[in-house]
Amino acid sequence: MDKKKEEINFVWGKPAPSLLPVKRLSLAVQTVLSSTEAATDALEYGDPAGPVQLRQEVVSLLARFYRTPNEVDEVCITAGASQGLVTVLQVLADPRYTRRVWMVAPCFYLACRIFEDAGFRGRLRAVPETDDGIDLAYLEQSMKEVDAEAVEEVERDGRRYRHLIYLVPTFSNPSGRSVPLAHRHRLVELARRFDALVVSDDIYDFIDSSEQVGCLPRLVDIDRALPLLPSDAAAHRHTVSNGSFSKLVGPGVRTGWLSASPALTRRLSQAGASIAGGCPSQLGAALVAQFLASGALTTHMADLLPAYARRRRLMVDAVAELLAPLGVTLVEDAEGREGGYFVWLRLPAGLDGAVVAAGCAEEALAILPGAAFAVAGDAGGPSYSAYLRLAYSWADEEALAEGIARLAGVVGRLQAQ
Amino acid sequence: MDKKKEEINFVWGKPAPSLLPVKRLSLAVQTVLSSTEAATDALEYGDPAGPVQLRQEVVSLLARFYRTPNEVDEVCITAGASQGLVTVLQVLADPRYTRRVWMVAPCFYLACRIFEDAGFRGRLRAVPETDDGIDLAYLEQSMKEVDAEAVEEVERDGRRYRHLIYLVPTFSNPSGRSVPLAHRHRLVELARRFDALVVSDDIYDFIDSSEQVGCLPRLVDIDRALPLLPSDAAAHRHTVSNGSFSKLVGPGVRTGWLSASPALTRRLSQAGASIAGGCPSQLGAALVAQFLASGALTTHMADLLPAYARRRRLMVDAVAELLAPLGVTLVEDAEGREGGYFVWLRLPAGLDGAVVAAGCAEEALAILPGAAFAVAGDAGGPSYSAYLRLAYSWADEEALAEGIARLAGVVGRLQAQ
Repeated sequence: MDKKKEEINFVWGKPAPSLLPVKRLSLAVQTVLSSTEAATDALEYGDPAGPVQLRQEVVSLLARFYRTPNEVDEVCITAGASQGLVTVLQVLADPRYTRRVWMVAPCFYLACRIFEDAGFRGRLRAVPETDDGIDLAYLEQSMKEVDAEAVEEVERDGRRYRHLIYLVPTFSNPSGRSVPLAHRHRLVELARRFDALVVSDDIYDFIDSSEQVGCLPRLVDIDRALPLLPSDAAAHRHTVSNGSFSKLVGPGVRTGWLSASPALTRRLSQAGASIAGGCPSQLGAALVAQFLASGALTTHMADLLPAYARRRRLMVDAVAELLAPLGVTLVEDAEGREGGYFVWLRLPAGLDGAVVAAGCAEEALAILPGAAFAVAGDAGGPSYSAYLRLAYSWADEEALAEGIARLAGVVGRLQAQ
Repeated sequence: MDKKKEEINFVWGKPAPSLLPVKRLSLAVQTVLSSTEAATDALEYGDPAGPVQLRQEVVSLLARFYRTPNEVDEVCITAGASQGLVTVLQVLADPRYTRRVWMVAPCFYLACRIFEDAGFRGRLRAVPETDDGIDLAYLEQSMKEVDAEAVEEVERDGRRYRHLIYLVPTFSNPSGRSVPLAHRHRLVELARRFDALVVSDDIYDFIDSSEQVGCLPRLVDIDRALPLLPSDAAAHRHTVSNGSFSKLVGPGVRTGWLSASPALTRRLSQAGASIAGGCPSQLGAALVAQFLASGALTTHMADLLPAYARRRRLMVDAVAELLAPLGVTLVEDAEGREGGYFVWLRLPAGLDGAVVAAGCAEEALAILPGAAFAVAGDAGGPSYSAYLRLAYSWADEEALAEGIARLAGVVGRLQAQ
């Protein structure tokens, strides 16, 4: 290994320190803690659903971005998307009742362990992404088979769903692709038919680098527009959207939101831990609420989104220039959407992602091989061994082309062997 | 209801706003956010186990208070004790494998729902407190019976325990009593014999109003001093301590810690949600770490603990003066320990706690009837209908005697009927 080379990290899907709004957040903190009333609110237990100020700000943000109406009773505050997922599983799943977790694959690999922790080890199944969306026919057939095979009929628990479906529908982690509108409708329809709950990580939606394509509606918005099913007497519906300020303010604030039907949102906000401990992110939520109310988020996003678009462009251009000639393909979205934190590369025949990643490590370049994004414990699912995920969120702008150059060197060398 | 009476709240087990260290915490925040490096650490994803600075500070705090050695690898940071309990359940319990949750009763009622959310609805069982500790013979016999009845032998899952035992061993919520040392030893011994995990909420230990009684060792410290069982090849041991800064800094910081064997701590810190989202309380943990490092906690506790002792004294004296003559008994600790947030009162024969609480509400006094502290779903367990819990943490000092006077008025009136 060349000791002189500075480490370049394409693994970490987190904002570069230079993209954190430290000064703006510091102002928000001072505002909150200099008022006795606001400080007391921030430091005591809060409403289990989260501070109403932040819920209102989230509703406004969603309304501006998606151009759909949202109400305060459709949003509750979480301690970030990972903890939001734990809450969904605590309240709405049970390994004795819920049969499978269907994960659109390649999947956000760190979600697997959260499902395993909830008792679903060995029951996660891949639903492959396709060039035009998701393999919905496979999902439908598989849910049918699992339901037919279920020998022991566990008593119906009104609080739980029979199946879970998990995906990052917009600017997916890792593939960067977005599920087209028609597939979104069909996915919601399938969930309704199979007593499934769709949990979507909608955390990259705002990090949109596309020009003039227009944002896609969330699955939760599509679900809401449909008439209630007669079987859904509790009006819970079949979707929940997981949102986060990790990408917009900073991961450390550990503040996000869940968005669902009013009935389901109420359930989620009344999780045992939230009733016992109050809002799962009380101080963080108070700071973020002030950050939004002061207009700092709008100002910050005006800097942030072009910065991500620029990073993406730098990386994609370098891929086209240096890797395409070697047969490495950038996986593109069917409708040309561009955004999120990642590019997903397909290696030419004969190359294995793990070998390439190991070669990159020798060149002080950290990347994740595609195999990391297979669904944990699903031996029959795709392996993604011919892929690589590269994050452009963390490394400095100047390092993006240099990192791709190192990767091209490794690919070229391996091809020459 | 007399409209002129100001509301007095003896329900809320949280610090009075006057006991929050707003200015001291504000200083800590400024320190953290004014350093680029510290601010970046606080705002990015953190180590799943929590910032090492805070873990070290917690270790020092534990060592000073309990006078036992603790190591950094025996502590991981949580987003408060409620979320800590969720993490324990995610990693170490499974409703398909774990048979029962044994809750020392009267129990912290808000914990019930956390267990129910983890799939244990209908499987929570009361283990009564006794005048000299806990009914350990009953617990042993009950675990034996459940194990004998278990028809279907679920495959041994090395990550999960067969039974859970939950208690607040020191200054219990609601009873204020502490489990004596001998019962602590026997409880740990039982847990080891029955493949049980003892989860203890040790969140009131520091709020000690006793004079010269000396603090009791935590169950986790007793467990640690024993030789490993041959069956515990993973060196997980059988106890986990749930700690929190909610009572020492402020609930809104949503920061606490879990303390267990190094092997178990590692498991807990590697919960799926912590790996995916980083430290569950990153910004809060960074602020609390600075708060401790600067010495602010020591200064704050020097104000805080006498304030709680004074509040307790005011309430207990008023109970002796105004309620004892009516036949209301203060439940006292066998060894004279005094602390925590609560007093637990036994009503004279013929009076029902729910009726008394309703009468108090008419007098603008909020109290919780004992029935709230029965174990959820355990029809055979004690009902505590002859008890009341009164929190002295929230109401102003001046209101404590006045609240007891209102309660005495209600009790007197009900007795006269």
